[in-house]
Amino acid sequence: MEKGILIVISGFSGAGKGTIVKKLLKTYDNYALSVSMTTRSPREGEREGIEYFFTDQESFKREISAGGLIEYAMYCGNYYGTPRGYVEDQLQAGRDVILEIEIQGALKIKEQIPECLLLFVTPPSAKELERRLTDRGTESDDVIRRRLARASEESEGMEAYDYIVVNDKLDECVREINGLVDAARRAPVRRKAFIKEIRDELKEFAKGAE
Amino acid sequence: MEKGILIVISGFSGAGKGTIVKKLLKTYDNYALSVSMTTRSPREGEREGIEYFFTDQESFKREISAGGLIEYAMYCGNYYGTPRGYVEDQLQAGRDVILEIEIQGALKIKEQIPECLLLFVTPPSAKELERRLTDRGTESDDVIRRRLARASEESEGMEAYDYIVVNDKLDECVREINGLVDAARRAPVRRKAFIKEIRDELKEFAKGAE
Repeated sequence: MEKGILIVISGFSGAGKGTIVKKLLKTYDNYALSVSMTTRSPREGEREGIEYFFTDQESFKREISAGGLIEYAMYCGNYYGTPRGYVEDQLQAGRDVILEIEIQGALKIKEQIPECLLLFVTPPSAKELERRLTDRGTESDDVIRRRLARASEESEGMEAYDYIVVNDKLDECVREINGLVDAARRAPVRRKAFIKEIRDELKEFAKGAE
Repeated sequence: MEKGILIVISGFSGAGKGTIVKKLLKTYDNYALSVSMTTRSPREGEREGIEYFFTDQESFKREISAGGLIEYAMYCGNYYGTPRGYVEDQLQAGRDVILEIEIQGALKIKEQIPECLLLFVTPPSAKELERRLTDRGTESDDVIRRRLARASEESEGMEAYDYIVVNDKLDECVREINGLVDAARRAPVRRKAFIKEIRDELKEFAKGAE
């Protein structure tokens, strides 16, 4: 069996990443969600190993030194990271692991795991992004503008991704992402076992031809 | 409108490339077949501009000097090449151009047109390749062995391709290739216009935020 694919999903705030990931997990059997490790305290209703793996600063730092995290970052005084062991176990079991993370983290992961698949989710246009952020009705104009400014910065990194996915209609977008993962299975970097096998077999046949 | 995709199809002799290409052209509207230029004489039934563009050595060499060919090779004393103009016109018109060519030619094309899509077609196994070559019943054991030896050499280049496509059942394989082309449309290298547009728009919004 070939390993599963590590799927890293980034995209503009307001692009609908969270909804897409939920729908992917609900619609198809092959996906598993990567669970992050954090030093922040559990909020009400958050469960160990579901929303996060909760730990303390000391243990987190030990994980860093031991190379147990694929990437990590500090945010508002708390550490957040992606445990390598959990991800590797799922991939070895043939599951496709989804990881939602911003661009800096995505690039760090690509460095370490080149056969990961980087997807960048975007609305059909900047105008539509603004509309979605405004329609939430929960954010002030100022927050919306800062998010758009952030999106402008993030858009500089789009070329680093394997695919740009336009989220216009949710169902179509989810189907499309599943198709991209399926396509990715055909890349040579993810067909190593198959290539080796056919190559070895052909070499045997070729010997017979000498 | 984004340009079409140049699809370069290679693969083992006996993998079923010809049948796949015919079926792709018949099933979907978006494909066009690249027509090669050659200095060999037309065989009976071959039509100018359909099977080949026929020309003489002198004109062919002029095309080479003028950079009018994406790649060319000599085979049995005749030149064969891929006219740049024809391919470019089709791509500009938004059509996906299929080019069936062996690995050396495929790599030359990738050098010049990095956004082309390289597909390598293979049977499910070397054993199956041998069976298909034998079942034709038209080739001597010696020819079959030489083809397998050739396949063994060609298998060394599989990693250079974007996707490895297993041709087990024809219909599935054709659908799969169409899916890969669709996936390829989402790669940043083929979404340049979209990326530029959303980036420019976001920059405008970001200015408003300063």
